[in-house]
Amino acid sequence: MYFAFAKACLAQSPLHVEPPFWWAGMQHSEVEVLIHAPNAAKYDLQTRLPIIKKVAGDSPNYLFVTIDTEQVVVGTYEMKMTAHKLPSLTFDYEIKPRVSTSKDRNGFDSSDAIYLIMPDRFANGDPFNDSVDSMTEKTNRDEKGGRHGGDIQGIIDHLDYIEDLGATAIWSTPLLADNDKAYSYHTYAQSDLYQIDPRYGTNELYRRLADELHGRDMKLVMDYVTNHWGATHWMMQDLPTDTWIHQFDDNKDKNYFPVKGYANSSYRQTTQMDPHASAIDKKYAEKGWFVSTMPDLNQSDPLMLNYLIQNTIWWIEYAGLDGLRVDTYSYNEKEGIAAWTKAIMKEYPNFNIVGETWLHDQAQIAYWQKDSPVGAIQSYNTGLPSVMDFTLHDALMASFNENEQGWDKGAVRLYENFVNDFLYADVDNILVFAGNHDTNRISGDGLYNGDLDKYKLAMTLVLTTRGIPQLYYGDEIGMAGNRDTDGDGDIRRDFPGGWKGDARNAFSNPTALQKGYQDFTKKLLNYRKNKPVLHKGELLQYVPEQNCYVYFRIKGKSRVMVVINNNPSEIELNLERFREGIQERKQGQDILIENSIDLTQPLKIGGKKSMVIDLD
Amino acid sequence: MYFAFAKACLAQSPLHVEPPFWWAGMQHSEVEVLIHAPNAAKYDLQTRLPIIKKVAGDSPNYLFVTIDTEQVVVGTYEMKMTAHKLPSLTFDYEIKPRVSTSKDRNGFDSSDAIYLIMPDRFANGDPFNDSVDSMTEKTNRDEKGGRHGGDIQGIIDHLDYIEDLGATAIWSTPLLADNDKAYSYHTYAQSDLYQIDPRYGTNELYRRLADELHGRDMKLVMDYVTNHWGATHWMMQDLPTDTWIHQFDDNKDKNYFPVKGYANSSYRQTTQMDPHASAIDKKYAEKGWFVSTMPDLNQSDPLMLNYLIQNTIWWIEYAGLDGLRVDTYSYNEKEGIAAWTKAIMKEYPNFNIVGETWLHDQAQIAYWQKDSPVGAIQSYNTGLPSVMDFTLHDALMASFNENEQGWDKGAVRLYENFVNDFLYADVDNILVFAGNHDTNRISGDGLYNGDLDKYKLAMTLVLTTRGIPQLYYGDEIGMAGNRDTDGDGDIRRDFPGGWKGDARNAFSNPTALQKGYQDFTKKLLNYRKNKPVLHKGELLQYVPEQNCYVYFRIKGKSRVMVVINNNPSEIELNLERFREGIQERKQGQDILIENSIDLTQPLKIGGKKSMVIDLD
Repeated sequence: MYFAFAKACLAQSPLHVEPPFWWAGMQHSEVEVLIHAPNAAKYDLQTRLPIIKKVAGDSPNYLFVTIDTEQVVVGTYEMKMTAHKLPSLTFDYEIKPRVSTSKDRNGFDSSDAIYLIMPDRFANGDPFNDSVDSMTEKTNRDEKGGRHGGDIQGIIDHLDYIEDLGATAIWSTPLLADNDKAYSYHTYAQSDLYQIDPRYGTNELYRRLADELHGRDMKLVMDYVTNHWGATHWMMQDLPTDTWIHQFDDNKDKNYFPVKGYANSSYRQTTQMDPHASAIDKKYAEKGWFVSTMPDLNQSDPLMLNYLIQNTIWWIEYAGLDGLRVDTYSYNEKEGIAAWTKAIMKEYPNFNIVGETWLHDQAQIAYWQKDSPVGAIQSYNTGLPSVMDFTLHDALMASFNENEQGWDKGAVRLYENFVNDFLYADVDNILVFAGNHDTNRISGDGLYNGDLDKYKLAMTLVLTTRGIPQLYYGDEIGMAGNRDTDGDGDIRRDFPGGWKGDARNAFSNPTALQKGYQDFTKKLLNYRKNKPVLHKGELLQYVPEQNCYVYFRIKGKSRVMVVINNNPSEIELNLERFREGIQERKQGQDILIENSIDLTQPLKIGGKKSMVIDLD
Repeated sequence: MYFAFAKACLAQSPLHVEPPFWWAGMQHSEVEVLIHAPNAAKYDLQTRLPIIKKVAGDSPNYLFVTIDTEQVVVGTYEMKMTAHKLPSLTFDYEIKPRVSTSKDRNGFDSSDAIYLIMPDRFANGDPFNDSVDSMTEKTNRDEKGGRHGGDIQGIIDHLDYIEDLGATAIWSTPLLADNDKAYSYHTYAQSDLYQIDPRYGTNELYRRLADELHGRDMKLVMDYVTNHWGATHWMMQDLPTDTWIHQFDDNKDKNYFPVKGYANSSYRQTTQMDPHASAIDKKYAEKGWFVSTMPDLNQSDPLMLNYLIQNTIWWIEYAGLDGLRVDTYSYNEKEGIAAWTKAIMKEYPNFNIVGETWLHDQAQIAYWQKDSPVGAIQSYNTGLPSVMDFTLHDALMASFNENEQGWDKGAVRLYENFVNDFLYADVDNILVFAGNHDTNRISGDGLYNGDLDKYKLAMTLVLTTRGIPQLYYGDEIGMAGNRDTDGDGDIRRDFPGGWKGDARNAFSNPTALQKGYQDFTKKLLNYRKNKPVLHKGELLQYVPEQNCYVYFRIKGKSRVMVVINNNPSEIELNLERFREGIQERKQGQDILIENSIDLTQPLKIGGKKSMVIDLD
């Protein structure tokens, strides 16, 4: 970030000091401060802070100064930089007191339900920051791919709604500054790693969001991007080191806008584990850029890697975060991302981080989880506590449109996903979801096309199977959107009522159909919230018959039976088959229709209906 | 088998002694001889052979006598059985000399190419054994599911053809007696484990087949069935022990023909590894019968298990086998089948056994291989050296009909199969195939419908990728067959020319189209035979572009480049991308069209064509 606290700096040359401050008592006590100023490498530094090391960047304008904060007294220290024939630079560096409970903070876990928000599209709480002078793209709500004005204040304004719905955590897509001239609303092309985008709010407001959540016993998950920055990041015109980003020699001299050395990723993340992969394929998959406007970071550069580690810790410590979601986790340099992950987890041993592992094979997803037996085959251990169940998502996208059960069709798809759970190191720490900001909307015409029954089937599974459920904003009111036919913007529509003057406010005054979605989601989420067996209980599953998937969650004496009838007609189940799950119980309570269930009789369940039967 | 050597036996009561003889110097030196005769358990036994143990079966008609052969001199020993008020029984038991090289025999491996034959459908070498009095089903060539008369002599008669084709090993589907009244031609419902079905020939003729093959430096692989026997097996009316087969209590009293206690398998082999599987699902998958006429064997019964181990060793030793293919491997009791496998491999440490592992996920297939890192997750180790690459088969069945490459379509399917090779303990010991006796014919209308080009693409892959290639008889002349629409019989048609009077003899006088298939297969097989880099070379693969899959096999300085162009049009490849494979070489030899290839220029390859470029 631009160093706002600088007492003195060259009039035309901004001084960057990152991280802008640090804390006493950190595990990561040797903080490596990046100083960016004209000819920074030529300067001497005078300060009362203990300096361990000074390293110049490859660019003469960078100096990396490592301060040992272990014994440092909390306070503000003057840093004076002088050099022959150059103007002197003076700034303060603050060592803040650390919150005593910081290290031991608990991350999100399977007792949580995460509500995923795209902040530009959720609610516009502060219309005065929709467009700001310092950022290129201005708000234009008529453009599907433009900025719409949603912001942090909009989230804060609707915390009652989210809490009432039954979610216990928020994952917002990135909020740091993204100065791209277009599509900056998705904010994955960040231009300043130490500043909330002013169109979303301020660093202080982000911290307030966390505080507000904590006051409700809820959690905040930051979307962190280790793989790439935006081409408009201020370092891109003056790279700290020659190896800061991945640049392709072939393209280094081509004047590709705006940063040189671009080549696209092949997106073939499987080259990361393929024992037969060619070197060139590995290179393009991992080092290629996600898109041309996102230079790919090189985590093998120790200065780069440490910059990322410190920036991440800074945000966790500053805002009081409860977890991270890491974008494109499996695209990073393998060793670098593992080192990054372990450094964060070393600082916060009870924290949680979920990596985006968008692969279509359980072994390939399991590979990335901490202590993975699959990763161990290649002596690889990321240290990443949580991964995403994209294969379950694949199954959910197809199963409920298949009215007939085949060998591998219909309800069987759901069942089969969990068969391979033996490949995971920790099945409770897997994110389960029916959609996110990159997938077709579950109620869109590409999928279940506004069929509330199918939504209910999907949500029954997501909210009662093992793992950590994640909902995508708007799914709970049946919002539509088809990425395949109408692009990203279509699955990221504005939440109705998030903007003053919206024709309909679905937060407070949903249509009857929206209310149908909302009520179901709310009922199940709130039931789940207080039902530990659904958080950490063992899963006991049955091979689907009649296109109906039945399973139990079991924890001590507590049991829940779930029946998901994907058959379009009513069916009858002989409950004798499920004796291992039901045991001697004679009665249960269907929490969805609040009805008592006689477990001594065959169970009838309507076509495309689900039951969540409390057996306690 | 019925004991042909018995000197005396009750007139109406056959005496069974199994194994009928044993060898001196075996690792498995304590041979447990099953004696079946009326009231056998009541008898005393007198013999000069050292008896370690006598155990009665649950049926009074069985006695298990364990002989310690370790110190026994080769020869024939009288066994005299006497009992109060019962007729005495006397028979000889022979301890034969062992062939000195027996223990160290080498099993088939990736230097081999296996030709799979269904003997009833390949060639009728002996018309006089088509129907025999002792076996119920008679030959009727007009019935698709009937016996057609093919036999071992028919195989022997065509060894020149098979050798000339370039195969180095034969796997014949089962040849032991199967006395089912219908469909006995497939012979997986065996009724006598010590006797070749007389409609195929004799034990001696089977041994002659092995000898003939060995004389050609070729190998014989027996199809062994551990999971089930036929309902007409002689033991089924008088089970040796109560736990010999899996019987379901619910059905034990139902007079289900012909053996009681039948319930069908669910075929859900994944319950074997699913950590969430219900007990009832595990039971029906593993203990359920494959079909009602095949009682499921219980390998947890130590007497049963040892019977299978000894029978298998007996056949290897007797016939001089070079390997086994094990039917329905993943349906067996997990611990039992591992014990069986390890016992065989202990007797023959350099032997090879391939298990049928018909699953659609690499992790689930890899699970069953010896020293599998995937099996190790559940502390499971079968000891099975080789598994079958059914996921490659899945890919082969779809890819060549996909003219456009998608993210996971077309040539990418092939590529992706090998990505997960890191899950396998031994990638060289995986059977690769484009079809077998249970799958749609590759040239049938369900698949590539007589398109020779597509056959060539498939065979190029099968014969040049890692692993042990297996061909299905008749594929090499483009035989058609669609199991989905026309049943099993359709994919098991008679080889034209295998029967006297056949309108066309494709062995000696193929049509032009048949010859096209044959010539290609022959050329590639014979090239492969003498190309060690194709047997054990490392695989180096490239992400397909333009729907074209390129890979190399590399062993020391020897290299082969394979190009499989699944694009329907000619394409041009910039060979710079493949420099890691080609290295400094400037020229190669396409062994298919016997053409020199200039590696300094872009490579043109026609639509749906392949190249195998020798770089040595």
